[in-house]
Amino acid sequence: MMMFSPSTYQHRRASLCTLMHHTGLVFIPGNDESPMNYRDNVYRFRQDSTFLYFFGIDKPGYSGLIDCQSGVATLFGHETTIDHVIWMGPQPSLADLADMAGGVETASPDTLATRLTVSDQTLHLLPPYRDHHRLLLASLLRVSPEHLSRYVSEDLIRAIVALRSLKTDEELFQLEQACTRTSQMHLTGMRTAKPGMLESEVMAAVRAVPLSYGRDVSFPIICSVRGEVLHNHHHDNRLNSGQLLLLDAGGESDFHYAGDMTRTFPVGPTFTAQQAEVYQIVLDSMKEAFSMIRPGAMYRDIHLAAARVITEGLQQLGLMKGDVSESVAAGAHGLFFPHGLGHMMGLDVHDMENLGEDFVGYREGLQRSSQLGLKSLRLARELQERFVLTVEPGIYFIPALIETWKQKKHLAQFIQYEVLPDYYDFGGIRLEDDVVVTHDGYRILGTPAPKELRDVESIRQQAISG
Amino acid sequence: MMMFSPSTYQHRRASLCTLMHHTGLVFIPGNDESPMNYRDNVYRFRQDSTFLYFFGIDKPGYSGLIDCQSGVATLFGHETTIDHVIWMGPQPSLADLADMAGGVETASPDTLATRLTVSDQTLHLLPPYRDHHRLLLASLLRVSPEHLSRYVSEDLIRAIVALRSLKTDEELFQLEQACTRTSQMHLTGMRTAKPGMLESEVMAAVRAVPLSYGRDVSFPIICSVRGEVLHNHHHDNRLNSGQLLLLDAGGESDFHYAGDMTRTFPVGPTFTAQQAEVYQIVLDSMKEAFSMIRPGAMYRDIHLAAARVITEGLQQLGLMKGDVSESVAAGAHGLFFPHGLGHMMGLDVHDMENLGEDFVGYREGLQRSSQLGLKSLRLARELQERFVLTVEPGIYFIPALIETWKQKKHLAQFIQYEVLPDYYDFGGIRLEDDVVVTHDGYRILGTPAPKELRDVESIRQQAISG
Repeated sequence: MMMFSPSTYQHRRASLCTLMHHTGLVFIPGNDESPMNYRDNVYRFRQDSTFLYFFGIDKPGYSGLIDCQSGVATLFGHETTIDHVIWMGPQPSLADLADMAGGVETASPDTLATRLTVSDQTLHLLPPYRDHHRLLLASLLRVSPEHLSRYVSEDLIRAIVALRSLKTDEELFQLEQACTRTSQMHLTGMRTAKPGMLESEVMAAVRAVPLSYGRDVSFPIICSVRGEVLHNHHHDNRLNSGQLLLLDAGGESDFHYAGDMTRTFPVGPTFTAQQAEVYQIVLDSMKEAFSMIRPGAMYRDIHLAAARVITEGLQQLGLMKGDVSESVAAGAHGLFFPHGLGHMMGLDVHDMENLGEDFVGYREGLQRSSQLGLKSLRLARELQERFVLTVEPGIYFIPALIETWKQKKHLAQFIQYEVLPDYYDFGGIRLEDDVVVTHDGYRILGTPAPKELRDVESIRQQAISG
Repeated sequence: MMMFSPSTYQHRRASLCTLMHHTGLVFIPGNDESPMNYRDNVYRFRQDSTFLYFFGIDKPGYSGLIDCQSGVATLFGHETTIDHVIWMGPQPSLADLADMAGGVETASPDTLATRLTVSDQTLHLLPPYRDHHRLLLASLLRVSPEHLSRYVSEDLIRAIVALRSLKTDEELFQLEQACTRTSQMHLTGMRTAKPGMLESEVMAAVRAVPLSYGRDVSFPIICSVRGEVLHNHHHDNRLNSGQLLLLDAGGESDFHYAGDMTRTFPVGPTFTAQQAEVYQIVLDSMKEAFSMIRPGAMYRDIHLAAARVITEGLQQLGLMKGDVSESVAAGAHGLFFPHGLGHMMGLDVHDMENLGEDFVGYREGLQRSSQLGLKSLRLARELQERFVLTVEPGIYFIPALIETWKQKKHLAQFIQYEVLPDYYDFGGIRLEDDVVVTHDGYRILGTPAPKELRDVESIRQQAISG
């Protein structure tokens, strides 16, 4: 089991107690195995990220309690038995694990119900996202699962977001590792894809990269010639020359930090002229976004600046029209760029999404917009040094969406609906890199896979002729 | 979405109604997405096998109700919206899905609670194995999750086991496909492994095989130079010449039928003399088991016959002693072969394990033994034509288990404890193929990967020099 030194977890828990004003009981249940088609046939184990952050133990069946008043933390888990050793090999004891987590006390899970319910301190929980936790907490607290929300603590959420948003040097090392592996996944994809292959064949080669390190993807791979289908997790299309392949994939580091990058490249050796034009707009918008990243910059403004570059570019192609500022304010670009520019990244690829997106990416006085595109913007607030986030502009031609808007003549003053049918087979283009905010700007994490048009074509020519 | 023709599902449901004596309501909830580290970051979707068997729909969010009295089946699910189309591409409508499942009626999930609770027919459920179903059923039936067992129906379990145990020709085609892909996984493993690699690098290449077909493994891959750790799902050891690598892996077919094979091969180009001796015993015991497979044969007898070959072989090596029949009856071989010879296989790799192992592999009058080895035998009953099952003998040297027995002088009249320390670094060997029981014997499914000593060494020599 790979984890930081015990002092890291001690320090994180101490910081949490401080942010909680040294009061309250914080209960953080670790994850358990997750069954596929029967109880003992399980998916790859993924520990809960908050439990990983405060206790580091990457094994199922544990949970942690932090008494913010006394500062004492307790690890709940069963002792290893001889049966475990026989069937699963030598295992660290509960006491060993407690040492590794930074000198926590240990207790049997059988004592949990009492510990959670007899204290005179307030109990603070995070919102459960696994049904296992809903059942466990309902049973421990003797409430029905629907009533667990009364224990969900905004104070705890805000404290954890404050801590986990600022990445330490040792976390940045992990994020670099995740992004280096993620780049390798993309290079593998660019070198593997050939006309006539199935999307799943490319996806398999890409997935094998993090698996070969003994880790896995940080989210399900998107690998599709139908890049305009944004949530496409099927891989059953065959790759044809002339199409674009959109690959959105990331791997985890040794300690389960995430990488998340996207590249879009031609199935054949070169982009068509039409593809190259749209690609260049996406790349330009990405560079515009990069140039604005620094502490204090509001990510919503950066999103809108990228939208402006997209709008200007699509106007030059004759697909949009009208005053650029008015068009961006009205959200006309949302027809082509219907998602947000990026999100925070850390132990989760959408970092802390289980705590509530708005606690992570927004703040008091900054409300989420309901406009298509902006409403999907996960990160809007001012950036701080040590934030890690993605930059991922895209242009898509989604016939069903275009037809819906067209019939309503929605924002017709900004959109050249009559020429759009020429793009109904286009698909979509997205580019994505991961950055850390530095004291005066940003740094791209990992060695990013090539994204300039010529560099991408050069790799593709080698891949296809090789 | 790949599935059998509508008439297949109609026929299966009609057969179920007959076995249920045309009475009762059978509710079969399909699986939902399963979250990793937050709700929307999900594992690969795996449909519930019983739902697949009776309805065929390989998508999350559906459930099925079969009224055994009227014979009418209903599919519960939400209608596809324009948002689904925009984000996930064109989707079949609920009515399309109902046609594909063989002319079932459709209804909104909102009507489920009423449908399940107002009928005067008995409600029959299978035991839930996902917490999502526990919460759903508790909510629909307005009982606490601990009280769901009162709805679990042995009649339903027995009816489904009777149906799913006998594989039709179209199911056998799927199982052949799964086993052919599974053989390909093993050949890939045997050709990929090289001294100095990590286990995870071999595992990644093996996993890429089913992934490249757009499917995945049927269970977590075991790929370890510590073959004696039976439930070893870690892959962090480095492969050293002189060691054995045990690979237990299987892939799913297009329709999610399972394959499950095991090979054990040397990391270097050849087996050592000691390894070859033990390997040959395992192979001989497998052949003995094959020779006995036919309708009417009791699988517990075949397990014990394989145990006898193992006992005789280990006696020849000087590791066991005493009367062979007495040794087998006492279970002394369990020290080296502590698991069962095999299990049923179908839509689940341990077929229908969620319905209860003893309903599948045992029968009235045939009780499970508590002896080490036999107690883990999942299939003991008489075989029938069209059963599909695994044959997987093994010999392991588990130091912790040997030391435990030795200290107690357990069955010391049959075991040469004093020589066993020479084998503490040995690891373990298992061989496994999948067979279908034919009218007069058996047929191995797929084209099995090589397992004769010389054939294995020949592949390994090519792999290492190539």
